[in-house]
Amino acid sequence: MAQHVVIIGAVALGPKAACRFKRLEPDSTVTMIDKSNVISYGGCGIPYYVSGDISEPNELRSTIYHMVRDEGFFRNVKGVDVMARTEALSIDRTAKTVHVKNLDTGDEQDISYDKLVLATGSRPRRLPLPGADHKNVHVVADYNDAIAIREKIAKGQVGRAAIIGAGFIGLEMAEAFADMWGVETTVVEVFDQILPNLVSSNLAEMGMKQMQDNGVVFYLGEKVSAIEETADGLNLKTDKRDIPCDIVIMSAGVIPNSELASGAGLEVSNPGGAIVVNEYMQTTDPDIYAGGDNVLMPNLVSGKSGFYPLGSLANRQGRVIGSNLAGLQQTFPGAVGSFAVKMFECSVAGTGLSAAAAEKAGFDVDTAYVVQFDRAHFYPEKELLHIELVFEKKTGRVLGLQALGGKGLSAVGRVDAVASLLPYKPTVHDISNLELAYSPPFASAMDVLNAAGNVAENILAGRNKAISGQEFDELWAHRDTNNICFLDCREVEDARSTVEADPEHWLNIPHHQIKACLDQIPKDRPVVLVCNTGVRSFEAQLGLNAAGFNDTVNVQGGMSGLRNRGKF
Amino acid sequence: MAQHVVIIGAVALGPKAACRFKRLEPDSTVTMIDKSNVISYGGCGIPYYVSGDISEPNELRSTIYHMVRDEGFFRNVKGVDVMARTEALSIDRTAKTVHVKNLDTGDEQDISYDKLVLATGSRPRRLPLPGADHKNVHVVADYNDAIAIREKIAKGQVGRAAIIGAGFIGLEMAEAFADMWGVETTVVEVFDQILPNLVSSNLAEMGMKQMQDNGVVFYLGEKVSAIEETADGLNLKTDKRDIPCDIVIMSAGVIPNSELASGAGLEVSNPGGAIVVNEYMQTTDPDIYAGGDNVLMPNLVSGKSGFYPLGSLANRQGRVIGSNLAGLQQTFPGAVGSFAVKMFECSVAGTGLSAAAAEKAGFDVDTAYVVQFDRAHFYPEKELLHIELVFEKKTGRVLGLQALGGKGLSAVGRVDAVASLLPYKPTVHDISNLELAYSPPFASAMDVLNAAGNVAENILAGRNKAISGQEFDELWAHRDTNNICFLDCREVEDARSTVEADPEHWLNIPHHQIKACLDQIPKDRPVVLVCNTGVRSFEAQLGLNAAGFNDTVNVQGGMSGLRNRGKF
Repeated sequence: MAQHVVIIGAVALGPKAACRFKRLEPDSTVTMIDKSNVISYGGCGIPYYVSGDISEPNELRSTIYHMVRDEGFFRNVKGVDVMARTEALSIDRTAKTVHVKNLDTGDEQDISYDKLVLATGSRPRRLPLPGADHKNVHVVADYNDAIAIREKIAKGQVGRAAIIGAGFIGLEMAEAFADMWGVETTVVEVFDQILPNLVSSNLAEMGMKQMQDNGVVFYLGEKVSAIEETADGLNLKTDKRDIPCDIVIMSAGVIPNSELASGAGLEVSNPGGAIVVNEYMQTTDPDIYAGGDNVLMPNLVSGKSGFYPLGSLANRQGRVIGSNLAGLQQTFPGAVGSFAVKMFECSVAGTGLSAAAAEKAGFDVDTAYVVQFDRAHFYPEKELLHIELVFEKKTGRVLGLQALGGKGLSAVGRVDAVASLLPYKPTVHDISNLELAYSPPFASAMDVLNAAGNVAENILAGRNKAISGQEFDELWAHRDTNNICFLDCREVEDARSTVEADPEHWLNIPHHQIKACLDQIPKDRPVVLVCNTGVRSFEAQLGLNAAGFNDTVNVQGGMSGLRNRGKF
Repeated sequence: MAQHVVIIGAVALGPKAACRFKRLEPDSTVTMIDKSNVISYGGCGIPYYVSGDISEPNELRSTIYHMVRDEGFFRNVKGVDVMARTEALSIDRTAKTVHVKNLDTGDEQDISYDKLVLATGSRPRRLPLPGADHKNVHVVADYNDAIAIREKIAKGQVGRAAIIGAGFIGLEMAEAFADMWGVETTVVEVFDQILPNLVSSNLAEMGMKQMQDNGVVFYLGEKVSAIEETADGLNLKTDKRDIPCDIVIMSAGVIPNSELASGAGLEVSNPGGAIVVNEYMQTTDPDIYAGGDNVLMPNLVSGKSGFYPLGSLANRQGRVIGSNLAGLQQTFPGAVGSFAVKMFECSVAGTGLSAAAAEKAGFDVDTAYVVQFDRAHFYPEKELLHIELVFEKKTGRVLGLQALGGKGLSAVGRVDAVASLLPYKPTVHDISNLELAYSPPFASAMDVLNAAGNVAENILAGRNKAISGQEFDELWAHRDTNNICFLDCREVEDARSTVEADPEHWLNIPHHQIKACLDQIPKDRPVVLVCNTGVRSFEAQLGLNAAGFNDTVNVQGGMSGLRNRGKF
């Protein structure tokens, strides 16, 4: 029987649900409502339009065959009616109507529905700062924001940009300003690392260093207190400094647009305000669906509910909703929280839980951090990948993977392999044996991912007594008092500059000579073992253990890790 | 208690097992035996040494920190004794000894073992052809072959190369000859496609076209009958032609080296001759382990046993054996058969079963073939990926994925995501929802992999009535008699050259105008729908179905697929 579906919101999930539904039920009708005049665009592409990588804003809302997805497109090609510039004010669930207002004419009306979809998305969190309403303070909420920001840059009005928040949008916008336009760019983050809760401080420092090397300035652990107008622009005030700038981007997270839902008596999380849905993406009213940036999703790793405002989830969920509107009963059981972000020539990606997130979720965790080439080490084209496998100490269960690589797909590819696996609760042993496609131009025979599984196994078994780069920093900082022997296991020529800079604390014995040089190593002092990536130092550790040296640790990721964070 | 482990074979699995074991049991001893003077090298890198991509042969047997893995390295660094140039002649399982012969001195002796590892690998199948023993007929078996072949090229002795077999090694060697050295290269394959049984003829034709565009000549479905010496070199004789050449590479598969095992009464498959092992990699004698290119492995998709001579498996299995020698009881439950091969600027990768392999294994299968950009279509850097998802018709269970992409990691990354999932018996719906890491520079919001899951769902539900490019070829070849209307749904300017070349058979109505132009479409004839990738033709098909046109099919992969196979 033909039905009438009303969809509120027409950016990502809404159009996907609408088109899928119309393909399944061509005789039914769909009305898609949006406040904006611009619908169905790739919001995640906004930083690349601002940067100039994408030249025309219409590219963000064009099909692959260059047709602009406007109201006419949806009406004529997809058979979906669109009411743009229309705001949904309230829902009457008993009458099954949505009360809407035309934002141009002010006319209001009720629209009946058989089924309703809340594709209302999220909005950027606007910090309640003095000066936050200045015309040069922007959020990156939608298509029109993108155009406004780029217009200011193109007109030469932006010499200095200040960005609040070092999450995905903040970092992408920082690159957009600094890379193509050469804008002096400063990022302020209230947490003490970029991408807080998403990656370890280890990977965060490496990523940040990449951006710093490209001219972006970071102030971490600082709180913005006000935005002031000055003679020559703006002043972003933090608790520690003044940052003069011409434009401020506020990218401090997003808030689900769930007021319509809660106003209609649907269940919404508190705190958080995300709409509660079941695995069919139905709200507590089975005729009303919701998905995308406004819903609560089970985390398939922690089992706890979370908020995952990611365009990839919105699209997949939109299709599930479209199917279910037509009676198919498809499920979307939850999210693992996969992400990727490009930072100049570097990529950071992750899936599942970071160590910090896992601890918050109540797991007792450890991390295997491995640095290895992304391809066979004898193949000429290759780059170092840094990956961190987070696992539960008690069970060896894998909880997450985070990776940092070059701007290609090395990091993302490894993350995807684990992302697809995570719902099945793999152990580190499964990662050791993961059968990735191998050929020297594409991977190693024992891939970096397998190596991470191997290291995790050795850590779990107590064979690999490892410390992180940050723990090394701490020991090194107190080297004058902690009586530690720092033993560099690299070849003499590789270790030379390090050792010569502080011969009092460093000892250099290449790992293959350690067995022959045991008498040079102090037995009564702790020994910290370092090599280039952590492989040889682990082997050295085993050799020392076998020889009765029991107070040893080796630095995961070795000098590669330290160097990429800007140490040594 | 310390034990003595003997390992026969020292290329990939042997050294991995030896080193892992020694790390776990430093007090035990290991003797590794190999016929060759060169051990522990990356055999999969041989084509890249022949091509010149890798300049020094030692790079193939060096550690990441540039130490050559020779006998001294194993003895001094790894604590593993090596007997090179030593052949194991027989095993006495009762006495627990291996009888060996020094190939230089001729001396024979018995070596005792507590545990034994058969890391004997495989050898290239030498076709019993007249002339096969000519000095310029090579197999690619080992390090020394690689050096011999490259030496001939470097000396200018190879202007024309003929390769028997279009599997991994054959194709990689063809690239090695043709790309860097400009050698006239011909490949003869007895099956009617390259990579037989591994990918569909669709992807095979695309891959072959890439190589043909780079000058490699292919003769498919031809059987080599002899190799003759001629006045100016060799003549490779097939059942259809003579191929003059200077060198012949025989790459017609490999045979497991299992004679030692069968001679000792261990179970070996018949036919095939691969050693039978349990999930701990133990042979039918629990004190004798085997792994790598000489064992039978359960296929985790089909449940049937198979032979997977892949360096990646050898390394992982070697570690498992090393662990179990030390009493750890690790398992290696089987293989999914992941692979990757580079062919000039193109990559072909796969995991699980191809449609042909799945049918052979008794599944009733269908394939979803999708062509889509590897990144957001609005992102400037991107390339088209061709992927084929093989699934069981009855259950929707995913059986395999094969992909063809550029020379980067796009294809391999998608294959890896499915490879890790396959042991868990995913359905096409799981692929639809697969949560890959997304950001425009790395993927699409609805990634090509998700799209393949979606297409498979629609095929299973009977909504998408699709034909392959080859089926299109067939219909097109008989267009003068089959009364079919070929309907191009692309935009007028995109379709023009196709339609103008044969206006009698082509009709062009852009997909968004079809609803308005139904009267132009014949209702009494079959309609074949084509667009650029298969997305719009599917939508057109749904529209036509809704309008009562029931005899329609759409071409999967559209013109992109046809063009990449060299059609249209």
